Amino acid sequence: MHSYPEAVERLIRELKKLPGVGEKTAARFVFHLLGTSPADLKNLTEALAQVSRSINRCSLCNDVTDRDPCRICAGAKRDRSTICVVEQPNDVVALEKSSAYQGLYYVLRAVLSPLDGIGPDALGVEKLKERIKKESVKEVVLATNPTTEGDATAHYISEVLKGSPVKVTRIARGVPVGSSLEYLDRVTLARALEGRREF
Amino acid sequence: MHSYPEAVERLIRELKKLPGVGEKTAARFVFHLLGTSPADLKNLTEALAQVSRSINRCSLCNDVTDRDPCRICAGAKRDRSTICVVEQPNDVVALEKSSAYQGLYYVLRAVLSPLDGIGPDALGVEKLKERIKKESVKEVVLATNPTTEGDATAHYISEVLKGSPVKVTRIARGVPVGSSLEYLDRVTLARALEGRREF
Repeated sequence: MHSYPEAVERLIRELKKLPGVGEKTAARFVFHLLGTSPADLKNLTEALAQVSRSINRCSLCNDVTDRDPCRICAGAKRDRSTICVVEQPNDVVALEKSSAYQGLYYVLRAVLSPLDGIGPDALGVEKLKERIKKESVKEVVLATNPTTEGDATAHYISEVLKGSPVKVTRIARGVPVGSSLEYLDRVTLARALEGRREF
Repeated sequence: MHSYPEAVERLIRELKKLPGVGEKTAARFVFHLLGTSPADLKNLTEALAQVSRSINRCSLCNDVTDRDPCRICAGAKRDRSTICVVEQPNDVVALEKSSAYQGLYYVLRAVLSPLDGIGPDALGVEKLKERIKKESVKEVVLATNPTTEGDATAHYISEVLKGSPVKVTRIARGVPVGSSLEYLDRVTLARALEGRREF
């Protein structure tokens, strides 16, 4: 049986580990790199090697960074009395883009998911508690995703922080700006009604 | 404005060049590699470097190979009187899996596509003609895809080979095995009727 050269098979195996990439897509990536764009292959290899070399997680907040502590944790202008807890590094980028938050972050890099065998130990809440103490934090904003796992994780952290002298808040659930009530699911609408505020 | 570290931005830019990968998918790939699977990042980097180093195109047939000539061109048991012309290296793998073909291959690595500025020069037909002469080939099987571009390419090559002492054939268009007539498009059905053979 004819097959690809071993180096190609190996690359396909590695690319298949990326989220949402199967055998066919991985092969398409490889043949794109080998066929139409040999220069891209070299550039991609170098870009990966550079990330391998230079990117780590911030020892304070777990965000991706090329320095430690990261720019936000080391930022002189950040409000150090507030910590926003998010699931993943891209959530930090999304929140920073909103320009609505000036405090610190804590990136869990995980959510509770019993079906996948991910329990409380994966969340590293002890490190979060230490930081809350050290920075004299007054408010912890739980900004995990509004999903079953994100809600469970937020609930778990709020339980752990009970008894600490910090205010624990959860980002508001409601109707997204620019959306149309007609097309929103009923759970979102119910949450939007529950969370209504005086006009 | 907060953004990813430069090395991360660069990797996202490179990954976006892969077919079907946009900004969001590229970022998801990077955070998968950085977050859940730092080991995968290293393995992927090495696999890419190995492909960069060891994989070339066969000087005879253009297929991807880690030796030159490739296993098929160098194969002692291959029928050297037939050359099958395909678009891309993965087409070779697909045909080899069918076990229905024992001859040689010629990989165009391109199809005629005037809208994308790809004309006859990109096909390298001169190299194919030389090989036909050198190997005393008797039949050229045109196995480009049954698409507008693939058909145009097959037609162009058949024109170029007019006057050569070789038989030029095209793979049959018809109903795929296991399919249901009800759901096949009318062009496929028309081709299947046109190409009918005595039972």
